[in-house]
Amino acid sequence: MNILFIMFDQLRFDYLSCAGHPHLHTPNIDALAAKGVRFTRAYAQSTICGASRMSFYTGRYTSSHGAQWNGFPLRVGEVTLGDHLRKLGMDCWLVGKTHMKADAEGLERLGLAPDSLIGARQAECGFDAWVRDDGLWAEGPDGFYDAKRSPYNEYLKTRGYDGSNPWADYANAGVAGEEIASGWFFDNADKPANIREEDSETPWLTGEALRFLAQAQAPFCCHLSYIKPHWPYIVPAPYHALYGANHVPAAVRSEVERADPHPVYAAFMGNRIGQAFEREEVRRKVIPAYMGLVKQADDQMGRLFAYLEESGRMRDTMIVLTSDHGDYLGDHWLGEKDLFHDPSVKIPLIVYDPRPEADATRGTTCDALVESIDLAATFVEAAGGSVPDHIIEGRSLRPFLHGETPSAWRDFVISEYDYSVTPMCRTLGVSSRDARLFMVADRRWKLIHAEGGFRPMLFDLETDPEEFRDLGDSPDHGEVRAKLYAHLAAWGRRMSQRVTRSDADIEAMRGRSLRRGILPFLQDGREVPDELTAKYRGPVRQRHLVDDEGR
Amino acid sequence: MNILFIMFDQLRFDYLSCAGHPHLHTPNIDALAAKGVRFTRAYAQSTICGASRMSFYTGRYTSSHGAQWNGFPLRVGEVTLGDHLRKLGMDCWLVGKTHMKADAEGLERLGLAPDSLIGARQAECGFDAWVRDDGLWAEGPDGFYDAKRSPYNEYLKTRGYDGSNPWADYANAGVAGEEIASGWFFDNADKPANIREEDSETPWLTGEALRFLAQAQAPFCCHLSYIKPHWPYIVPAPYHALYGANHVPAAVRSEVERADPHPVYAAFMGNRIGQAFEREEVRRKVIPAYMGLVKQADDQMGRLFAYLEESGRMRDTMIVLTSDHGDYLGDHWLGEKDLFHDPSVKIPLIVYDPRPEADATRGTTCDALVESIDLAATFVEAAGGSVPDHIIEGRSLRPFLHGETPSAWRDFVISEYDYSVTPMCRTLGVSSRDARLFMVADRRWKLIHAEGGFRPMLFDLETDPEEFRDLGDSPDHGEVRAKLYAHLAAWGRRMSQRVTRSDADIEAMRGRSLRRGILPFLQDGREVPDELTAKYRGPVRQRHLVDDEGR
Repeated sequence: MNILFIMFDQLRFDYLSCAGHPHLHTPNIDALAAKGVRFTRAYAQSTICGASRMSFYTGRYTSSHGAQWNGFPLRVGEVTLGDHLRKLGMDCWLVGKTHMKADAEGLERLGLAPDSLIGARQAECGFDAWVRDDGLWAEGPDGFYDAKRSPYNEYLKTRGYDGSNPWADYANAGVAGEEIASGWFFDNADKPANIREEDSETPWLTGEALRFLAQAQAPFCCHLSYIKPHWPYIVPAPYHALYGANHVPAAVRSEVERADPHPVYAAFMGNRIGQAFEREEVRRKVIPAYMGLVKQADDQMGRLFAYLEESGRMRDTMIVLTSDHGDYLGDHWLGEKDLFHDPSVKIPLIVYDPRPEADATRGTTCDALVESIDLAATFVEAAGGSVPDHIIEGRSLRPFLHGETPSAWRDFVISEYDYSVTPMCRTLGVSSRDARLFMVADRRWKLIHAEGGFRPMLFDLETDPEEFRDLGDSPDHGEVRAKLYAHLAAWGRRMSQRVTRSDADIEAMRGRSLRRGILPFLQDGREVPDELTAKYRGPVRQRHLVDDEGR
Repeated sequence: MNILFIMFDQLRFDYLSCAGHPHLHTPNIDALAAKGVRFTRAYAQSTICGASRMSFYTGRYTSSHGAQWNGFPLRVGEVTLGDHLRKLGMDCWLVGKTHMKADAEGLERLGLAPDSLIGARQAECGFDAWVRDDGLWAEGPDGFYDAKRSPYNEYLKTRGYDGSNPWADYANAGVAGEEIASGWFFDNADKPANIREEDSETPWLTGEALRFLAQAQAPFCCHLSYIKPHWPYIVPAPYHALYGANHVPAAVRSEVERADPHPVYAAFMGNRIGQAFEREEVRRKVIPAYMGLVKQADDQMGRLFAYLEESGRMRDTMIVLTSDHGDYLGDHWLGEKDLFHDPSVKIPLIVYDPRPEADATRGTTCDALVESIDLAATFVEAAGGSVPDHIIEGRSLRPFLHGETPSAWRDFVISEYDYSVTPMCRTLGVSSRDARLFMVADRRWKLIHAEGGFRPMLFDLETDPEEFRDLGDSPDHGEVRAKLYAHLAAWGRRMSQRVTRSDADIEAMRGRSLRRGILPFLQDGREVPDELTAKYRGPVRQRHLVDDEGR
């Protein structure tokens, strides 16, 4: 069996028709859901691209792998999905984005050349790169945001787009009269991008995936990872015109939220993107563009799935479709992601398993508490391995796919956000070490703990599914908070770094030292079988005693 | 300044005359204490050699570095004291024991040859090995406990001791008639070891240290790490005869402890070594030998310190003397270490700082809560660096040495013990993942949390300094337990793995993306200075729009 692991970036869990979006029709993704299981309570391990992705790619919480924000290198030696799969004889390829930052200092310390096979895999988070493109070729007075070269920009140049950064000038910009109308400006979100639709990012990457698939040797894992519908919010024709202000859902927000907000929440509401998304005119321009980007993505899924059908790959390939986190889009007076309301922390997750064992669950949904780290475990098992649970902290979703009830499934999920690099760290006056948030949620409650001496936030997902009423200091909810804090404390004590010894190793070690001569408990040796003490008995061959007794 | 970092193995904090031992006279170690600061509340990060040492050598808790028992490899890439010091221009050498197990799988995964310079340092926990000898050349029917070669055994052979394992036959055995009397058997602990005293382990390693020092280039860090007074409990003449049963302190134990013991405590009391040390005849033979080993160690310290004085090294060398953990010696109905009563978890710690700034504190004691991970931080600072506190979790002891009051010193200490490999894991019926204990102690209270659904243990160090009365389920101490559990929970959320980004890195990153073209919050660009948006403006050079409007 192969694995096709499709990730979109910043795709909200509820912006799919199979997830109930009132206006957006995504028949191709829906068709995948109809063949697989759609998980309705899937959570990202972090609400920021880089950290979330490193969790997907290692199967470990962000506090465990340590790459807790964009641009924080994943330390050299951290075991990745690629390492696990290759041990099982499965290649692990990347087509698109990872947001991986190489641990240059660690590579140098270990003498690993980034252009060696091992060094390159360390630098690419365990993947072999068919094409790596992180999709943000932003440029400012201090240079490019991303110092790597852009395969997508190179592609655009071969297609006749001029200038040094056609990503900025064409793929992510429209036209206003004779001027470039940058997609960075929300005012331009309703304009079509000045690019042929087939040359825009999502179709380009789909083409790369098709080229990869045409030559791939089974078994393979292919991580097909799109930048869209991530901002800049602009989409080529005809997608720019499919949706209008009448298709924009009302913002899920309430004045109650602004009455006495938690300080961390208040800081994020007050940031530039929160301020921008407060304005209805922003939402009315941005959300139709975002929907257009999703619609385009769905059409590209149609193209991809058609190829898989034709080539027979649909019969021997597990397909996963997910996102690294969501997008507030003005809900809760916020833009972007960062915090832990459902639009940000929940992710779409569809898993199609071609095996007959999965026939019974096709087209169903599963509301178990799922974490993004579960995919690495699922993939290792799909590749024929058993999950190395001293390294991978997630659990395989296979039982859910095969209609089984896994024993003792988790009863809470964790997500984390390190905002030390953001301006909100300074706004709040917390140290970079304390600029960390932890979400712990069960099926009913969601608690957010903020380091730095703040009270927690608490939401009742049952009576307040919109998450408007923060019960973080409600006198009636002390027990609930205590219960969730106990979950968080247990999680904090988890065994996350004993990565060089498996349970099987430990079993094999247990009691072994006795038969290797370690006997620090014997009165005279008669307590154990002779064979254990044989090496310590025998005639004295030489006398070296030089004590006063002259023996 | 150089660093001489002396470690004994299993040396109890209170088996020194400067620490108040009633019978043992250790004038040389006392003299070091008279020149430095003796820390009276120093705790090992773990009560087992390997785990404790990996914490000393990384400055990180055992849950952070993951090598939580003997023989659990320290994962490749973990940053060590040697890495930190070498960056500061200081070599880092090993003379003796580390209990380091190389991460062979990790080395292979990264293509690092164990015999390359980098591979060797990875395999030796960051040290360059002048001589590596872990000191346990035990042998049983399944072979040697330690698969490495023994430099000490090779030395003995050059000195005329015969056989394949003179460590076992001579250094750690006496004579009974014509038979070898193994030091493994407590019955033989009162016999002199059948070896010339100068050839026994402690003098041999001191000789190696003197050879090292004679050629060392300053600045250096030398980790001089003795196996003794660790078992086998046997010592050469004249040390075997210096102490007798009348010098054996009464066991610190009470029937109260056996009345209704915590299940984990009960399991350890019931193990072979606990059973052995219950017997007074065992204590009366073993403890005099143990004291003899300590006395020999003190004499060797005299030899070492005399060299340092003569060579001038005493003026430019920081000297630290400590141990990896203690030894119950029958206290609390236990032998060995493992649990967290003071005789096991507390360690001797003397720091001599030659700098004039330390003149004011010479000969004083300090009762601050100190952890063994503080030494790595102290050494980095002594080598002229600032402590990379995103990697090293300990704090420099320098302020205490220089008579300063550090700001916001810790108010609790942590120690951990992973007993998954021990038979007690099976006795208790816990999974290997749950076979983990955490101690959290402040100046008054000590709480031990056991994973696996057990109640905690709790001791009041003020009213019950002997730690006899377990208040783990006392109805009067719920608040105390809650306070200590809150400490443990905060510790569990510590930032331990963000090792690739320092605070300074984060400061430098903060807000940087704005000037690199990331603008996901602008209505039309007028919100920020023109220079930030300049790259996104300009005339349209090509039109690729292919929408229905035919623009």
